[in-house]
Amino acid sequence: MAKELTTREDNYSQWYNDLVTKAGLAENSAVRGCMVIKPYGYAIWENMQHALDKMFKDTGHENAYFPLFIPKSFFSKEASHVEGFAKECAVVTHYRLKNDPNGGGVIVDETAKLEEELIVRPTSETIIWNTYRDWIQSYRDLPLLINQWANVVRWEMRTRLFLRTAEFLWQEGHTAHATQAEAVAEAEKMLDVYADFAENWMAIPVLKGVKSANERFAGAIETYCIEALMQDGKALQAGTSHFLGQNFAKAFDVKFLSKENKQEYVWATSWGVSTRLMGALVMTHSDDNGLVLPPKLASIQVVIVPIYRTEEQFEAITVKALEIKKLLEEKGVRVKYDNRDTQKPGFKFSEWEFKGVPIRLAIGPRDLENQTVEVARRDTLEKESLQMQNIELKVVHLLEQIQKNLFQKALDLRTQKTFKVDTWSDFLVQIEKGGFLMAHWDGTPETEQKIKEETKATIRLIPLDSVSETGKCIYSGNPSNRRVYFARAY
Amino acid sequence: MAKELTTREDNYSQWYNDLVTKAGLAENSAVRGCMVIKPYGYAIWENMQHALDKMFKDTGHENAYFPLFIPKSFFSKEASHVEGFAKECAVVTHYRLKNDPNGGGVIVDETAKLEEELIVRPTSETIIWNTYRDWIQSYRDLPLLINQWANVVRWEMRTRLFLRTAEFLWQEGHTAHATQAEAVAEAEKMLDVYADFAENWMAIPVLKGVKSANERFAGAIETYCIEALMQDGKALQAGTSHFLGQNFAKAFDVKFLSKENKQEYVWATSWGVSTRLMGALVMTHSDDNGLVLPPKLASIQVVIVPIYRTEEQFEAITVKALEIKKLLEEKGVRVKYDNRDTQKPGFKFSEWEFKGVPIRLAIGPRDLENQTVEVARRDTLEKESLQMQNIELKVVHLLEQIQKNLFQKALDLRTQKTFKVDTWSDFLVQIEKGGFLMAHWDGTPETEQKIKEETKATIRLIPLDSVSETGKCIYSGNPSNRRVYFARAY
Repeated sequence: MAKELTTREDNYSQWYNDLVTKAGLAENSAVRGCMVIKPYGYAIWENMQHALDKMFKDTGHENAYFPLFIPKSFFSKEASHVEGFAKECAVVTHYRLKNDPNGGGVIVDETAKLEEELIVRPTSETIIWNTYRDWIQSYRDLPLLINQWANVVRWEMRTRLFLRTAEFLWQEGHTAHATQAEAVAEAEKMLDVYADFAENWMAIPVLKGVKSANERFAGAIETYCIEALMQDGKALQAGTSHFLGQNFAKAFDVKFLSKENKQEYVWATSWGVSTRLMGALVMTHSDDNGLVLPPKLASIQVVIVPIYRTEEQFEAITVKALEIKKLLEEKGVRVKYDNRDTQKPGFKFSEWEFKGVPIRLAIGPRDLENQTVEVARRDTLEKESLQMQNIELKVVHLLEQIQKNLFQKALDLRTQKTFKVDTWSDFLVQIEKGGFLMAHWDGTPETEQKIKEETKATIRLIPLDSVSETGKCIYSGNPSNRRVYFARAY
Repeated sequence: MAKELTTREDNYSQWYNDLVTKAGLAENSAVRGCMVIKPYGYAIWENMQHALDKMFKDTGHENAYFPLFIPKSFFSKEASHVEGFAKECAVVTHYRLKNDPNGGGVIVDETAKLEEELIVRPTSETIIWNTYRDWIQSYRDLPLLINQWANVVRWEMRTRLFLRTAEFLWQEGHTAHATQAEAVAEAEKMLDVYADFAENWMAIPVLKGVKSANERFAGAIETYCIEALMQDGKALQAGTSHFLGQNFAKAFDVKFLSKENKQEYVWATSWGVSTRLMGALVMTHSDDNGLVLPPKLASIQVVIVPIYRTEEQFEAITVKALEIKKLLEEKGVRVKYDNRDTQKPGFKFSEWEFKGVPIRLAIGPRDLENQTVEVARRDTLEKESLQMQNIELKVVHLLEQIQKNLFQKALDLRTQKTFKVDTWSDFLVQIEKGGFLMAHWDGTPETEQKIKEETKATIRLIPLDSVSETGKCIYSGNPSNRRVYFARAY
């Protein structure tokens, strides 16, 4: 393979871009800001989808599908929502093209202008709550627990593969409840689902908390979030869950008859994660040799490479390799036998290393004689020769080890890069080095805004499990009773 | 439930619309021509997706994702393609809204006009072949076997839920090959996959054939299709697979270095099925009592309804019901225990009948005494009392029976409604009654066009397995050497 990869130290941002494209995860398309998710990347996204979808269903949610287009007027109905979303969107104004009478290809048919423009959904609260009005009459119709897997479009000016693209894939949950308490509980439950997924599938440790008012979702009363720390010390928001109060119910007139026979507005939540998680996955675990994938999400968990000179050796090794492949597959392991005769073992080794396959098994003629197999793990780059007996059990165990090790490594890094900061001068020094800065804040949007302007750091979250602690705001010196997490972020 | 349902005889079209909305499959949205796929309908679509996705992967295909938007100029590159698709499409012209300075909500920001308009994909050949140019250099990069699950938009003027909507969900396969023979074999293989899925999952018998030139996909050399016959005698195209020759490779300059070291254009196929299949499913099996779903695709295969008067009875029945549910789930059956205390058994019976659940189990106090359970099948509406012992095996067997019975019933109907027609006067009489008309045709687009104008019938397909037979064209009297299938179609 011998892929050229900028090192993280040289240029972290370039390293990321190189890796995503050269490992075959995604690439930029001919359409500004839109990416092509390539098969190797899409297979990882599918694994994420399957795991999340099962978690959503296990917590009582059903999938549905709502229109791609939203009438422009819907956006004006929720005042803060329109401010947050209407500014960056793709607008459909016509519904027909025609041949240019002057022979210039096809042109927009000006006679086919829409009466009302349609917006390509940046998020679906408005169209969904407009639909819920007909679905909800009584408390018996609640809770309504719905999720949608979809593409959305936000017209970003500066885009980066997976992290920030004009079109991206995501899921958006939209639930309706009879009481405030139920809706808050739902928003918190889904935050827990996201944290569980991030930690136990992606092997990414996350902090749980709520956003400050400045960083809240447009239209939410409270935005819950999980935040992860990347290797370069920048934070990444990995998922959000919003308690929307009755804002959308009021905007779209969605009422229900309560058990007490009263007409009341419905309480709402929404929550989502996107293909952005692919960026988090790459940036958390990968290294200067290429991708490192957690076993639970790797599309190929084990690759077997034959080492041979003669056709006879190849045939004998193939028999053994397919036997091991079958044993592993019976244990639920995703295995590839790389029997290409167009590439040498060395090329295959570096290719699969670059692509982050967690375990590589190599089998040569001497291994057949000795009943051994060479086992290489991607996370530590360690190799050892193991007896073939019960190899499938050893591999399954090793996959679990790798999954745990990746999480622990990321957790250790976060611990190293999380600092309590008590003076503004320390803050200014530390923010340049990266990491989470736990600091006191006076609770005002003004202070937050000034800190952002001066340092590019934002409040990533106010932790859910924070302990009360008396202190002074890092910036204003005003009293504060708990620390919040600051960081520069993706 | 007591849902009002127009009978098929009264008004087949109204029956269909009523059924789709009242059974909770889909409904029209606030956006003209776009539907909302409701949870019960979406769950069936997900089952279809899972089955198809596995079949695609088993035949060597990988999933990927390409942009929603296609630059307008791409459409002009393949001459016949633009004729077929550019006329009915959603055009994005701007990328920003702003607050109306006159206070009229949000309006399009005219300063944010795109240099080149973007088309919301009606199908993705152009953007994909523009991408393949960079992916294919050598014969070693071929075949490239890719599928995409996506939403597409075609600006239809007359829409019907699932059958014809402006936005619909589908999969589109796009493959690239080194030789013509390989590409033709791929197109035919995927047609077989579709036929297999239609018959063995949807329980819908289909004819396999190729389209006449008039009905071919815009840009294809050959369009293969599967065609089904609905209960009202109209045909429905249930899937197509296209051999695209080198048309898109030439339009987007996609060449490869062959084994013989020559630069050659790549050969292509594309193939797709859509949420239209949901319409075919409903129209093939359902009846005047509601939906009838084939067990393999039903989201709930078995519903258990408790019959009780007292709380003690309810508790005892619940124990038994959950026991049966568990036994069934261990056999892979999707079961719902309908323990709602807000509805009476009669209501539940008619609700699940309306929703097409293949098997209903009812358990009352006497059943507990006698160790029996009442088993009702949706397809025949027959009921019988069965001993509880090994009930899970009996139910699994019955699900298989129902799956087969639905296919056989649909096949019998198609057989009854397929006619050999040899004179134009017979054709005119028979086409009014519906069904497939097997008739001779002189092979010219002109004749086909005239028949369409006079009868609204089109050539649904030229069968793949047709036997050579000398005859005279039903319309022109000119010589013909085989029969083709005519029908009016959805």
